[in-house]
Amino acid sequence: MRDANEHTITEAVLDRFADTPDPRLKTVLLSLVRHLHDFARDVELTTGEWAYAIDYLTRTGQICSDTRQEFILLSDVLGLSMLVDAINHRQPEGATETTVLGPFHVEGAPQPAHGADISGGLPGERLLVEGAVTAAEGAPVPDATVEVWSADQEGFYDVQRTDLGGPALRATFTTDAAGRFHFWTVMPAFYPIPDDGPVGTLLNASERHPFRPAHVHFMISAPGHEQLVTHIFADDSPYLDSDAVFGVKNSLIETFEHRDPGTAPDGRVLPEPWRHLRRQFGLKQDGTARARP
Amino acid sequence: MRDANEHTITEAVLDRFADTPDPRLKTVLLSLVRHLHDFARDVELTTGEWAYAIDYLTRTGQICSDTRQEFILLSDVLGLSMLVDAINHRQPEGATETTVLGPFHVEGAPQPAHGADISGGLPGERLLVEGAVTAAEGAPVPDATVEVWSADQEGFYDVQRTDLGGPALRATFTTDAAGRFHFWTVMPAFYPIPDDGPVGTLLNASERHPFRPAHVHFMISAPGHEQLVTHIFADDSPYLDSDAVFGVKNSLIETFEHRDPGTAPDGRVLPEPWRHLRRQFGLKQDGTARARP
Repeated sequence: MRDANEHTITEAVLDRFADTPDPRLKTVLLSLVRHLHDFARDVELTTGEWAYAIDYLTRTGQICSDTRQEFILLSDVLGLSMLVDAINHRQPEGATETTVLGPFHVEGAPQPAHGADISGGLPGERLLVEGAVTAAEGAPVPDATVEVWSADQEGFYDVQRTDLGGPALRATFTTDAAGRFHFWTVMPAFYPIPDDGPVGTLLNASERHPFRPAHVHFMISAPGHEQLVTHIFADDSPYLDSDAVFGVKNSLIETFEHRDPGTAPDGRVLPEPWRHLRRQFGLKQDGTARARP
Repeated sequence: MRDANEHTITEAVLDRFADTPDPRLKTVLLSLVRHLHDFARDVELTTGEWAYAIDYLTRTGQICSDTRQEFILLSDVLGLSMLVDAINHRQPEGATETTVLGPFHVEGAPQPAHGADISGGLPGERLLVEGAVTAAEGAPVPDATVEVWSADQEGFYDVQRTDLGGPALRATFTTDAAGRFHFWTVMPAFYPIPDDGPVGTLLNASERHPFRPAHVHFMISAPGHEQLVTHIFADDSPYLDSDAVFGVKNSLIETFEHRDPGTAPDGRVLPEPWRHLRRQFGLKQDGTARARP
């Protein structure tokens, strides 16, 4: 192929990928080339804009570290993460809706006993979380693995702080015979996604705020069921209608109830007012995806 | 916006970019979101594929350095670089066609006298390049800045070698009163683009070779004219029909003529056979772009 012009080059590139042995990879690459070229033609992308994009993507890669994933953030603020989530989680009736994983999940969180305080001594309103894991049709799921993590009352995750000795506000539990788990933490605050890098530049240039409403993350796995990745949002948080990453679903908003000082259901005595979240999580059985809507 | 689904999320994201103050940035972002979302929907991108893409882009950014630009390479092998080149250089009659910049241009190359040998002592067939810079209508352009660079006989640029004391096979000249320049170098070889990183993984997975046909780069600037970025390809090189980056145009292919040992036009005595490239470069006057075809 010689002399490709701005119209013929797309077919030339598609031809070059024609021998891709893996059929799925071939499908994805051909579609990627078509859409990428259509984008450049639609906006008549200038050489300067192309060079800016090259530099932007390079900076986005280079700011990534063990504790920061700027490409996930970029995917999040462009709505791609929630789109991929929606495509891959066409939930049947009774299954809890999903939302973004986010960049703050950490493998290998501590595994304390049920009822533990996972706050690592961080200040804030005490929050008791009582959860129940069920199959979509309502039967309890014992021995499910439940990973939880959240921001603190200042809106920071443990990996964003340098003043902590180890993990905080994250843990892994296993559901009991009745499919239940519970733990103590602190009430999370709404927070800005990290906006001191390329994603912040994009938000700033488009006059978008970087905030996410207050939420607790849950990732729940059990044999025979699809892994559930979701949050539960607090109904009194700001930004429920303008989450920077488009992650809010009405079915995931709950009242984190205000409780007076006194004795909690697990016998713990609280000298200050505390909060209480009770929530059921419905897992989707493997192989029960809905058809494409 | 809450409860966006796989169809409504695109409008939700477009709405969020609606306040972008710069109208051009807004146009580019809205188009980018539409095409990115259409791509994900068309292929029903899986969560695993999305995660692979995040990691792939991160690795692409992290392998970039002062002497390696993997995102330019990625743009090149996807044909995006040549598409952007075509959109931005709708050349009028008499103006030399353009091609990719490539990742091996270096600012601040040496400025030797006309007739200098820029090979830095590297072995290879001696090559005399005699160039003439004209305006599109044919008038010579004196005092034009001509940057030249090329690979060596093994297909490596100076910045890819660790055994050189400084720049080689690259220089900056200024055209004389007749718009002319000339220099000695060595005959460049065809070469693979760097294929030990993410771009190599892509080429390998799609059974594409990484080679570019032999060429010399030229970047020519003069007041009142658009900067010309192009190559001249050797007509006896392999890969003219399958350049890994889609950069070959018929009008940029020349015979690098074989000459017998003896005295060259500039008086230099050659004990071995040598090669000879003579080429005219037509600059495009500022503001003379053709209409969109």
